[in-house]
Amino acid sequence: MDAHAQSHDDLFGLDRHVRLAGPLPLDSGASLTPVDFAYETYGTLNSERSNAILICHALTGDQYVASQHPITGKPGWWERIIGSGKPLDPERHFIICINVLGSCLGSSGPSAVDPATGDKWGMRFPVITVADMVRAQAMLLDHLGVERLNAVIGGSMGGMQALSWPVLFPERVESAIVIASTARHSAQNIAFHEVGRQAIMADPRWQGGAYYDGEAPSAGLAVARMAAHITYLSEAGLTEKFGRRLQGREAKTFGFDADFQIESYLRHQGISFVERFDANSYLYITRAMDYFDLAENHGGTLAKAFGKCRDTRFCIISFDTDWLYPTEESRHIVHALNAAGAPASFVELSSPFGHDAFLLEAPEMNRVIDGFLKAGAL
Amino acid sequence: MDAHAQSHDDLFGLDRHVRLAGPLPLDSGASLTPVDFAYETYGTLNSERSNAILICHALTGDQYVASQHPITGKPGWWERIIGSGKPLDPERHFIICINVLGSCLGSSGPSAVDPATGDKWGMRFPVITVADMVRAQAMLLDHLGVERLNAVIGGSMGGMQALSWPVLFPERVESAIVIASTARHSAQNIAFHEVGRQAIMADPRWQGGAYYDGEAPSAGLAVARMAAHITYLSEAGLTEKFGRRLQGREAKTFGFDADFQIESYLRHQGISFVERFDANSYLYITRAMDYFDLAENHGGTLAKAFGKCRDTRFCIISFDTDWLYPTEESRHIVHALNAAGAPASFVELSSPFGHDAFLLEAPEMNRVIDGFLKAGAL
Repeated sequence: MDAHAQSHDDLFGLDRHVRLAGPLPLDSGASLTPVDFAYETYGTLNSERSNAILICHALTGDQYVASQHPITGKPGWWERIIGSGKPLDPERHFIICINVLGSCLGSSGPSAVDPATGDKWGMRFPVITVADMVRAQAMLLDHLGVERLNAVIGGSMGGMQALSWPVLFPERVESAIVIASTARHSAQNIAFHEVGRQAIMADPRWQGGAYYDGEAPSAGLAVARMAAHITYLSEAGLTEKFGRRLQGREAKTFGFDADFQIESYLRHQGISFVERFDANSYLYITRAMDYFDLAENHGGTLAKAFGKCRDTRFCIISFDTDWLYPTEESRHIVHALNAAGAPASFVELSSPFGHDAFLLEAPEMNRVIDGFLKAGAL
Repeated sequence: MDAHAQSHDDLFGLDRHVRLAGPLPLDSGASLTPVDFAYETYGTLNSERSNAILICHALTGDQYVASQHPITGKPGWWERIIGSGKPLDPERHFIICINVLGSCLGSSGPSAVDPATGDKWGMRFPVITVADMVRAQAMLLDHLGVERLNAVIGGSMGGMQALSWPVLFPERVESAIVIASTARHSAQNIAFHEVGRQAIMADPRWQGGAYYDGEAPSAGLAVARMAAHITYLSEAGLTEKFGRRLQGREAKTFGFDADFQIESYLRHQGISFVERFDANSYLYITRAMDYFDLAENHGGTLAKAFGKCRDTRFCIISFDTDWLYPTEESRHIVHALNAAGAPASFVELSSPFGHDAFLLEAPEMNRVIDGFLKAGAL
């Protein structure tokens, strides 16, 4: 099936689904065929096909970047940046957001059905990498008739993809915006993910990933989410938001209920997460992130990874209180881009909110992105 | 039973156990009676009874501060600092280390037998505080005939106790050495502990704490330990020690085994911990730490807590890479001590090892402690 076999209405719009034959060769040596994609588009691809912007979502994000989430009913996760008069503007841009390979919102992943068996994949789904995610996105863009991206943009794991795009497809990317991200997962990053994975796998309901006919390992997944969530926030932000304030009580209870607001908040984060996310997907995507090291295939020299990226403009953004992917990681990317002769601008923004800042109200970030995109349009 | 009813050999030495009638009134309003103590002493109490040093251990520490651990067979956890010619010297000092109230190495805690019922306490054990731990220690010191401490010293939760001692018993403490610690648990501190507790409670084997006749919730406890362990190490230390190095393999396996050394190390930390520690004790002690806020009973002003501490000399030590209890927390203590007119010296030491630095080879820390103690002896 190619683009011409589908109507425009099928291809473009909200809540799109398509199955492509593939095969999609994976870094592991395995390959996927067919490959399912769930995605949304906003705006219209212009006749020059020059206004396409790909948004890459983070670990637990999804394609509902600017439309209501079908499970939670919440507004799109990045509506702060997408909309009329905003940096990503459907009146000017053709915006695409694809549920990432390995996720659980409609694209191929462990909770999807393996067409070869008719059963859900579970842990038989092949282990994937960030590069695999990007190659899958490229396959869908081919299908949509988008040869070249005006910009690819993402925060956190979305930033890993945005950074990988020009490395893998230098001729297809005019500009890349990489926010609160890194060129490789550190030992501490891996450690936090491993705790989350062990929490899931320790849940007896996990059953080696074959839980789809029974109860999901929600308790383990909730613990994983709670641990990860702490890393998304800054110590100062937590102190400001919660401090040692008690939750709906005058005094400590001398028990194990959620006495403190921060406990109640974290428990809520865990409980609400399991309603919208698949535990196996969490395993696969964290694994992909842990495997991420852009320099690895270039003798450990990041600049070499960017060797063919001189025609892509880069915008690297970090937040000063982000301790998951600290500014130092962004600076490392910028130095490598400079060494490779790739045009790069870099800004560290101030925010009390830690890593999560890129998902929150950040007018300065909006201005930086808007300015960067408009400078490229000149 | 009082000191005179026991022989010297019973009272002093390694691996001592004693049951005192109490009652021990607790902050919760409950009281414990009797109270069991497991402790060790090193050296001899001099005739003036002026050379006693109390060592307070951390969350998962124990009384085996300078003797072989009965379960792991490992050497004492602070032998780097205790011994002939070392800062704490049994030839000069009478050293006491007591298994903390709520722990599981012989002192009263959830895994001990409730004398009233003949069954193990489990979650019927009263919730305790750091102040309760200190009051229990004071009860044992009374029993041992130690009226006054030449010094009380501890790191991490041991530091919370060391800091609380002169606040609760100003007349009994000549000097207090507080290492890598804090005067109150922050929202982030509480958050990490809450993740650990939720991991334990999510383990179906936990059974509301009544697991002593069956299998312990080892999977949950291991996850709790793994999460906590990350906070004990610095990002830079992890990178230096493990980086992204693979564990006994040439290439990534594209699976969920411990590909990376850091994963293997963390799993080992989790697995080995559950052999020596009780899950319910972990709940109780983390709760006590979360409840810790020395200023709370003094209108939120820490200096007021130290109002009666002008005759105690304080030595506050922090480590520059400790992000669990950062130097800022120690500085906060020192400012309050200064405001209260209590003599305080403060040093931030440099170490790559994060919070755990106080347990590792730290010659500079030894020198500071040695100098501080000897200055007091002049």
